[in-house]
Amino acid sequence: MSALRAVPIPEEAPKPQTYTAKAYAAQSPTSSMAAITIPRRTPQPKDVQIEILYCGVCHTDLHFAHNDFANSIPTTYPCVPGHEIVGRVVKTGNAVTKFRNGDLAAVGCMVDSDRTCESCREGEEQYCASMPVLTYNGPDKHLGGVTYGGYSQSVVVDEDFVLHVPKNLNLAAAAPLLCAGITTYAPLRRAKIRAGQKVGIVGLGGLGHIGVKFAAAFGANVVVFTTSANKTADAIRLGAHEVVNSKNDAEMQKHAGTFHFILDTVPVQHNINPYINLLKRDGTLGLVGAPAEPLPLEVFGLLFGRKHISGSIIGGIRETQEMLDFCGEHNVTADVEMIGIQQINQAYDRLLKNDVKYRFVIDMASLK
Amino acid sequence: MSALRAVPIPEEAPKPQTYTAKAYAAQSPTSSMAAITIPRRTPQPKDVQIEILYCGVCHTDLHFAHNDFANSIPTTYPCVPGHEIVGRVVKTGNAVTKFRNGDLAAVGCMVDSDRTCESCREGEEQYCASMPVLTYNGPDKHLGGVTYGGYSQSVVVDEDFVLHVPKNLNLAAAAPLLCAGITTYAPLRRAKIRAGQKVGIVGLGGLGHIGVKFAAAFGANVVVFTTSANKTADAIRLGAHEVVNSKNDAEMQKHAGTFHFILDTVPVQHNINPYINLLKRDGTLGLVGAPAEPLPLEVFGLLFGRKHISGSIIGGIRETQEMLDFCGEHNVTADVEMIGIQQINQAYDRLLKNDVKYRFVIDMASLK
Repeated sequence: MSALRAVPIPEEAPKPQTYTAKAYAAQSPTSSMAAITIPRRTPQPKDVQIEILYCGVCHTDLHFAHNDFANSIPTTYPCVPGHEIVGRVVKTGNAVTKFRNGDLAAVGCMVDSDRTCESCREGEEQYCASMPVLTYNGPDKHLGGVTYGGYSQSVVVDEDFVLHVPKNLNLAAAAPLLCAGITTYAPLRRAKIRAGQKVGIVGLGGLGHIGVKFAAAFGANVVVFTTSANKTADAIRLGAHEVVNSKNDAEMQKHAGTFHFILDTVPVQHNINPYINLLKRDGTLGLVGAPAEPLPLEVFGLLFGRKHISGSIIGGIRETQEMLDFCGEHNVTADVEMIGIQQINQAYDRLLKNDVKYRFVIDMASLK
Repeated sequence: MSALRAVPIPEEAPKPQTYTAKAYAAQSPTSSMAAITIPRRTPQPKDVQIEILYCGVCHTDLHFAHNDFANSIPTTYPCVPGHEIVGRVVKTGNAVTKFRNGDLAAVGCMVDSDRTCESCREGEEQYCASMPVLTYNGPDKHLGGVTYGGYSQSVVVDEDFVLHVPKNLNLAAAAPLLCAGITTYAPLRRAKIRAGQKVGIVGLGGLGHIGVKFAAAFGANVVVFTTSANKTADAIRLGAHEVVNSKNDAEMQKHAGTFHFILDTVPVQHNINPYINLLKRDGTLGLVGAPAEPLPLEVFGLLFGRKHISGSIIGGIRETQEMLDFCGEHNVTADVEMIGIQQINQAYDRLLKNDVKYRFVIDMASLK
């Protein structure tokens, strides 16, 4: 897929000048992450050069490092992951209007899109008909090859894909908002979640724990579904009003027909039908995890109660800025475990065991 | 389920007087439909007595006659099916305000509901928390036992569950509107289908053929998906602008990402994922058929494009009246094959083979 949409660089177009940055990369599907030096373009007129302070570690990083999406988006090596980027502007192109040196800045999962399709025109760049240019492993139209992500000292991005970060937020804890945050904010916002409504969160991981915070910040009565009894106290601390053991049928049945919205963050095979049963009439099960295998859907459960299932991925740039602003006002950030870049392989191992509360964030000062 | 919610008749409450009506009933899951005489209550203050002129034959009739829903709503015998009823008012209770003798009148799938739950208060009686009282095989709070449906000379129904029929409609062809019509009208209306939008209809049967007419009447560009090449001419005649062979991948792929809404009327196991692929961003696959087995749902298809799956059953009384009024204005009715009640067993046999264009309607004059 990457190969199909790679933008060939016209021969006459000179490549921009570059500078080098330290980074961490996978060199093959089986190699460990290790230090590398990568080129970054010098800022073009609309570009912002950002010194990266923190970068969140998303499970997707690990998938790309291991070439797990070989059939749809094969990984080009070296692969420098990272799309939860927070830093400070150190240089700007001469046509940049939204950022100045010294500004806080953030970059999420996209660094460009075709900007002409219906989705782009409507500010929904994440659904760009040409596919948005991913922050890493996307076709790099400036330098050729693929884009390199946030496990790096520095990144250069068109200002239209750079976000402002509210100054009051803890910057390390804000990094995961750029992927895990917008992924959970967008469907809850779209469902117009408000006070008095009952919202469920399935799965208390990197996504789910921020989903709890957003649902609570929107004023909802938040119920966390989990199969791990030891997550109860944490769920309450994060803002949940109740925790339900999803394996306990009697406990589940008590909530039948009462939820306005249930956000399902589980990325592996699971049974969604019991959650559909818990929805009120016209309620929605919002899926943001992507299991590899199809999920069995019992249609009767949707018919009786006019219920809905929706999917979504991240959010558009405008919506991502709105989310960050909301986080600034309501002081919402992720719960993070800070690591040095040298611990990234160990972090990946722990991620595979879901052993993180709730997001690893790399302190990029460790790269110097 | 029927037994659980049957309303016991208080001993002190005298049963209303009754009169008799000729009808056709199944006496067991394996018996043929045969003549029977049933009691009907004399109209109570809010009741309307209707002389039935026509009754549509819905596949659900056959399911109940055969006790196919034994695990959820077991059939009580004798079972008099029929919930697509059109007739004329012949008697009214003294508190009836909406109908007069001689008025055309129609009855659909429900004859009562609890009227107090949230859904009932919002005019969505079909989702009544206590389950609406079905037109047949529902608990009869007046006479005890179960309600008897429209395969009968006469029926008595509370005026709140009786609809007005526009005078300009062909009455026999209007009967299927009471179930097949509202089932397809409601989800299209809820999706706010309008001119310029592209709407797909999956399955060209009793439901699908009316769905085509509604979608066309709403001004949409209508595409019918079918696996039967011989249905093409018919689909176009019914109002479709294009017919796609859903087994032809290349033909399907041409329509990828272009549909606002796809109405899926197929009640048996089938692959919904190719239809999700055809939806535009934010598009909806509306399911109105209820396959017995779960359908495999590929979640990726929902995520990329923020797509939706929704289910629905029939419509509320207010919405059903709105649908009938719309049909009057736009002259929408079903394509029907008229039969005498004596041919009902033969019609059931043909229904099992999908051999009907597109709805059998019983001319109730045949019962006299």
